[in-house]
Amino acid sequence: MGQKTCQQTRTVSERIIFDGDLNDKQTLFGGKTLSLLDENAGLASFKLVHAKIATVGYDHINFWRPITTDKYIKMESFVTGVSDRQIEVFTKIISHDLKTDVTEIAFTSFCTLMTLRSAGQIELPKIFPETDEEKYLCAGFDERLRQRQQDYLQKDEFMSHLTMD
Amino acid sequence: MGQKTCQQTRTVSERIIFDGDLNDKQTLFGGKTLSLLDENAGLASFKLVHAKIATVGYDHINFWRPITTDKYIKMESFVTGVSDRQIEVFTKIISHDLKTDVTEIAFTSFCTLMTLRSAGQIELPKIFPETDEEKYLCAGFDERLRQRQQDYLQKDEFMSHLTMD
Amino acid sequence: MGQKTCQQTRTVSERIIFDGDLNDKQTLFGGKTLSLLDENAGLASFKLVHAKIATVGYDHINFWRPITTDKYIKMESFVTGVSDRQIEVFTKIISHDLKTDVTEIAFTSFCTLMTLRSAGQIELPKIFPETDEEKYLCAGFDERLRQRQQDYLQKDEFMSHLTMD
Amino acid sequence: MGQKTCQQTRTVSERIIFDGDLNDKQTLFGGKTLSLLDENAGLASFKLVHAKIATVGYDHINFWRPITTDKYIKMESFVTGVSDRQIEVFTKIISHDLKTDVTEIAFTSFCTLMTLRSAGQIELPKIFPETDEEKYLCAGFDERLRQRQQDYLQKDEFMSHLTMD
Amino acid sequence: MGQKTCQQTRTVSERIIFDGDLNDKQTLFGGKTLSLLDENAGLASFKLVHAKIATVGYDHINFWRPITTDKYIKMESFVTGVSDRQIEVFTKIISHDLKTDVTEIAFTSFCTLMTLRSAGQIELPKIFPETDEEKYLCAGFDERLRQRQQDYLQKDEFMSHLTMD
Amino acid sequence: MGQKTCQQTRTVSERIIFDGDLNDKQTLFGGKTLSLLDENAGLASFKLVHAKIATVGYDHINFWRPITTDKYIKMESFVTGVSDRQIEVFTKIISHDLKTDVTEIAFTSFCTLMTLRSAGQIELPKIFPETDEEKYLCAGFDERLRQRQQDYLQKDEFMSHLTMD
Repeated sequence: MGQKTCQQTRTVSERIIFDGDLNDKQTLFGGKTLSLLDENAGLASFKLVHAKIATVGYDHINFWRPITTDKYIKMESFVTGVSDRQIEVFTKIISHDLKTDVTEIAFTSFCTLMTLRSAGQIELPKIFPETDEEKYLCAGFDERLRQRQQDYLQKDEFMSHLTMD
Repeated sequence: MGQKTCQQTRTVSERIIFDGDLNDKQTLFGGKTLSLLDENAGLASFKLVHAKIATVGYDHINFWRPITTDKYIKMESFVTGVSDRQIEVFTKIISHDLKTDVTEIAFTSFCTLMTLRSAGQIELPKIFPETDEEKYLCAGFDERLRQRQQDYLQKDEFMSHLTMD
Repeated sequence: MGQKTCQQTRTVSERIIFDGDLNDKQTLFGGKTLSLLDENAGLASFKLVHAKIATVGYDHINFWRPITTDKYIKMESFVTGVSDRQIEVFTKIISHDLKTDVTEIAFTSFCTLMTLRSAGQIELPKIFPETDEEKYLCAGFDERLRQRQQDYLQKDEFMSHLTMD
Repeated sequence: MGQKTCQQTRTVSERIIFDGDLNDKQTLFGGKTLSLLDENAGLASFKLVHAKIATVGYDHINFWRPITTDKYIKMESFVTGVSDRQIEVFTKIISHDLKTDVTEIAFTSFCTLMTLRSAGQIELPKIFPETDEEKYLCAGFDERLRQRQQDYLQKDEFMSHLTMD
Repeated sequence: MGQKTCQQTRTVSERIIFDGDLNDKQTLFGGKTLSLLDENAGLASFKLVHAKIATVGYDHINFWRPITTDKYIKMESFVTGVSDRQIEVFTKIISHDLKTDVTEIAFTSFCTLMTLRSAGQIELPKIFPETDEEKYLCAGFDERLRQRQQDYLQKDEFMSHLTMD
Repeated sequence: MGQKTCQQTRTVSERIIFDGDLNDKQTLFGGKTLSLLDENAGLASFKLVHAKIATVGYDHINFWRPITTDKYIKMESFVTGVSDRQIEVFTKIISHDLKTDVTEIAFTSFCTLMTLRSAGQIELPKIFPETDEEKYLCAGFDERLRQRQQDYLQKDEFMSHLTMD
């Protein structure tokens, strides 16, 4: 089914931070960040392929810097790997201080999504990185996929210890 | 500063799934789940210690099963590890099918939080597991901590590849 | 259709109080409390019986103590009476002060729900109290039901005085 | 401090029902109604007197008729009694069917609010009913107040049976 | 299809301003105002005619005065013109200072809505003004309609300059 | 204070349309669009100058095409004119059909913002258009400003006809 560039899946959302979104440390409430994250990463995957796609997991979620009301944020997501029915989407938040004009990477994460089996056999496009950032992130996909598969192998063992009452 | 049992930090939130919370697959929107998650995990850490605490990251977030409107969910969080200024909180979502009475583990994750440096030197209580589930999850803390520290060691390398425009 | 214990219908939701949920007295906005209440009480009734159930009324709603951001709350609902198509659910909010560890009953209420006629003839399970709290609350059901029926007898008189323009 | 008419405290809010506000019976979610209720009743009390006022309770909350998306609602609140630091506010919801032009009383309730002690000694205005509806509702205030005081006398007994763990 | 008076389409919503609705200037967030506006104006058009109606535009939106938390607002909308499939709705916000009892016009706007073609041929009722305010606003309808048609004539020219990447 | 390019103020927000955001025509609720609009346009003005800025009005708001759930949207705002304390921001919404890959201009508007007098004398940067789209929109600024000033001249006459009860 051909290929798409990372750029073709890039999804951007810029936001002002409202007082109502702050927690008791006067920084952006984590739950708000995660909620925006899931919407933005999902849209990047829809740009790769028009299909029923579900989020199956997140890893390497890091809140590197607190986000405060003096700042606005730019959330950017793009696809960084494709394998079988799996799609990996990288998301970063760049915060921009309105007073000092200083920008920082405030947040990064990798999301794994999967096309639904019920959607039938869909051959996903290959993903093609162009910039250094895209190449670096796509290069790490195989190792991250390996880690996830290892996690998945321990699923039954893990689940057997959890209670459901 | 003594110790607390996992049970003393246990935080529970049961919810009905509303139609307004569903995505295009008619399952609970991931962003809604993540938003509830951050609130619940945060409260578990507040039960460990009364201090300014910030979420620093998440890993091993897995959406094991779709959550639909026939179900209600029980989200449960508790502390599974403490080290220096770090607190690890495990969260699971048990979904309960109202028609069939079948329960499933629908979601699990580990959250890392940290007491703020500005809060001064706080000695965190040790965490003491009692049930099999608690013992199993606390036993894995050292290995998960090791992985996170490895991630953290690659931070500068990782960041150096990200653009900020 | 047998019986269920109060415990089998118990529904719990613990919450942090966010700044965005506060009114001009810096206490939890009443409307927020009532909105959480209706969701929690509804879920308790769903645990009694899987059917179409509608809220028909509330009484004895008391905000005993103000809830502030230093506190977290634990909302707890369970069924306290069943009669014909009616289900009564008691809800209390326990507030917990994070600084002083003092807990208080901040809110109580009784909700009446009813299975829909369109759902056909459903025999509701009897409700069986076990703890002192459950026994005390269930013991008051008949008197509260009598009061509601008296209210209901005055419905036509009451309605005849209300305008609809 | 003189008097005000019920009309001077009348507060109105008309709303369309959105699909996102519906529950599994395709009627307006009770929690949404209660949340609007508390805002509207509060505003009616602010029109009586400019002071710090807190909701202390609700009684006689009745959902008389289901509210669906074919309808819009008109919520109307006004003060129906004043005694010492207490203010009683009546609220009704009139639903209007857009197709058939039929209007119904869908919901009624009485809310009790109280000026805060910290606000110092405030003499509340007397409330003066003018229409038949206002006169009927104000006439019932003494009896409803008597019932609330009886409830309040049982408070200690009631509370002594509730657990706080 | 006869006629309706402006009064018959009048739609009112009174609101308290919550801290969570404020922006960094401590005044009501414009987006919140616009969101309330669209709901209120829409309801006024539904009162004119029961049909599928869509918002097609706004003009003359003016935020005349800042709205702060010491105030409550009364939003009022009514139909001020009808032409072919078009309906014009005027909306004003009156803010009321709770401390000083001073009222101000804080906001005004004109909204244009249109019955959907898919709804078939619907003859809209004429609109009949009664008060001086209604007569003044309805008198300006033809001129505002003319301006909108002029805007519309430039649509193709305007659109041809916009990019869509 | 020099100048900035339109590009330097460009603010982008891409969004998926959720079922919960739809109205009874199964298109994006206008109030939701307007709420997003105000946030996005505000951020574009903050990128021009770091100061207290308030929205004073909107004109030429046009909903050109309905937005449905098969589509995602890209909202784009940038400054198109500066005069004294006034800043004009243009916003367009491009909708993208996920099935057909067809893009459309679904919405456009012009917002006027103003730096607060209390912020003291601030000399705003001049705005410098580079692309054809930017040049076309900036070229129309003087005419739109003239229309707004004409509107403003009629303010007292207009206001004198509005009632405030």
